[in-house]
Amino acid sequence: MKLAIDAMGGDYAPEKIVQGVELARDKYTDLKFILYGKEEKIKEVLKNGERITIVHTDSVIEMGDEPVRAVRQKKTSSLVLAAQAVKDGKADALFSAGNTGALLAASLFIIGRIKGVDRPGMTTTLPALKGPEDSFTMLDVGANAESKVKNLHQFAVLGNFYSANVMGVTSPRIGLLNNGTEEDKGDPLHKEAYQVLSQDPNLNFIGNVESRELLNGAADVIVTDGFTGNAVLKNTEGTALSMLKLLKETILNAGVQGKLGGLLLKPAFKTVQNKMDYSKHGGAVLLGVKAPVVKAHGSSNEIQVSHALRQLRSMVTTNLTKNLADYFASRPTDEN
Amino acid sequence: MKLAIDAMGGDYAPEKIVQGVELARDKYTDLKFILYGKEEKIKEVLKNGERITIVHTDSVIEMGDEPVRAVRQKKTSSLVLAAQAVKDGKADALFSAGNTGALLAASLFIIGRIKGVDRPGMTTTLPALKGPEDSFTMLDVGANAESKVKNLHQFAVLGNFYSANVMGVTSPRIGLLNNGTEEDKGDPLHKEAYQVLSQDPNLNFIGNVESRELLNGAADVIVTDGFTGNAVLKNTEGTALSMLKLLKETILNAGVQGKLGGLLLKPAFKTVQNKMDYSKHGGAVLLGVKAPVVKAHGSSNEIQVSHALRQLRSMVTTNLTKNLADYFASRPTDEN
Repeated sequence: MKLAIDAMGGDYAPEKIVQGVELARDKYTDLKFILYGKEEKIKEVLKNGERITIVHTDSVIEMGDEPVRAVRQKKTSSLVLAAQAVKDGKADALFSAGNTGALLAASLFIIGRIKGVDRPGMTTTLPALKGPEDSFTMLDVGANAESKVKNLHQFAVLGNFYSANVMGVTSPRIGLLNNGTEEDKGDPLHKEAYQVLSQDPNLNFIGNVESRELLNGAADVIVTDGFTGNAVLKNTEGTALSMLKLLKETILNAGVQGKLGGLLLKPAFKTVQNKMDYSKHGGAVLLGVKAPVVKAHGSSNEIQVSHALRQLRSMVTTNLTKNLADYFASRPTDEN
Repeated sequence: MKLAIDAMGGDYAPEKIVQGVELARDKYTDLKFILYGKEEKIKEVLKNGERITIVHTDSVIEMGDEPVRAVRQKKTSSLVLAAQAVKDGKADALFSAGNTGALLAASLFIIGRIKGVDRPGMTTTLPALKGPEDSFTMLDVGANAESKVKNLHQFAVLGNFYSANVMGVTSPRIGLLNNGTEEDKGDPLHKEAYQVLSQDPNLNFIGNVESRELLNGAADVIVTDGFTGNAVLKNTEGTALSMLKLLKETILNAGVQGKLGGLLLKPAFKTVQNKMDYSKHGGAVLLGVKAPVVKAHGSSNEIQVSHALRQLRSMVTTNLTKNLADYFASRPTDEN
């Protein structure tokens, strides 16, 4: 299996990307990599070229570039070349930690959507602190600023497949993020989506879920429009980070007693941080395109990069996108 | 000044409501109260009837009642009577910890909107862990499932007034909750709202704010549509609670060392909890109706009830709703 890597995307590229690739390469003997980017810079970091091919290019899509224009104009950029390799069958899956919008555009324009999926959904895995599973899947977290009922329905189908096949959840519980649990809650979009989801016999739809209950593992798949999903994802990150920071500062300012207490609780804090760290589940997956595509956080370190590569491997191994395409081919078209 | 109290709304009504009223009464000698509800039950708790009038009624709007129907049909319920007292000028402001939808309906149908405000916004105050102020104001957090550009604009004006007059912030920084900081981010609603807000010379609009930055005090007033605002508010609550719970459980499971560390850090944890506790700023305010209306959390204790009453007092003292009405009367009508 071969993974196409945008080696130049991300705050610490190519260093952390290359290191992450080597970690994954050492761990999974079935993985081969094509790294797209500045050969000299990549070689400065690369320790061992085993199962790693470098394709040199000087062109890079920057974080500030307007995504669609950048993908159309920078045809030899590391990202566009990597996406093209997947399109041409030279690689099985695509990884980038760079410009999210550009990865989205490259995936849509070059790799293409699965037939029957109107809008792919950006999919993330978050920790579930209670409930039967230790994590849950949420989409769309920002690929689309606007969604229709059929998009929400397709997100549910995509998330259901991902949860079952990649996360290993049996009959995933599908919840609709809404501003109340009753079935008549929300704006017309969410009211109608509730009805459509509850009528799909292939989904284990459990109803509306409020954002208060997300980390309590209220569902295995949370279906949401990209605007709300993006707000909730960033808010979860922000609130968790702010609380940990506040705690740290308070302890540092609590004198000798605080410092001693902090020392004694170091292992406990580490446990909490580990449980909240969802990068161990990999990056955000763009579900609904014809090949596995994963976006790692721009600030990813080598461990986080290697988690995202493991996740791509698992998507390729389970034949996720092929199965999704077959399923959508056999499914009646959404009408809304 | 006289406050109309729905003594029967809330999980611990009338007990905690009555106790909260007495706390506020003892603290603020200018406050008088009319309590609406079951006289016998209220009297069981009431220690001292000074400046407190009880108006008996057996009818109560329950948490599960359909709001609009309940307000229309239960004309002698504690909530409807309290709202009617405000409408009739017998009281200056309205308090309830009961059914939010019913309070919203009673406020709209009985007290009425300020002329020029198309949709009142539910307004909450959250902690700012960084930045110049220790809190910020956010609206709408759920009075409206759908919003138009003019609604977002009016929320900004309402929030600006509240922040300046009740929270005492000079020239409040107004931010628009959006899925990116650039001005072209978001769906058409948020893109257009950005333009309208930036063109209002009476607002200190600082641009888009991502939900990740909320607790960092990125703005003094966060303007959002009620659907996203509701999701973000509940998510902040849920994430903060889940983290504190996880920390507590981890410490309890960390053996003797953990327990000792937890003991030493008890004051630090208390500080964190205090900083995160936004009930000290009062309840959620329904801004845009003709009199001050505050909704306390259903699970409020007497301290939280007394905070919400202090907040109502401050809104009455600063003549907030009269000033808002004057401002809206002098303002050109929103066109969008």
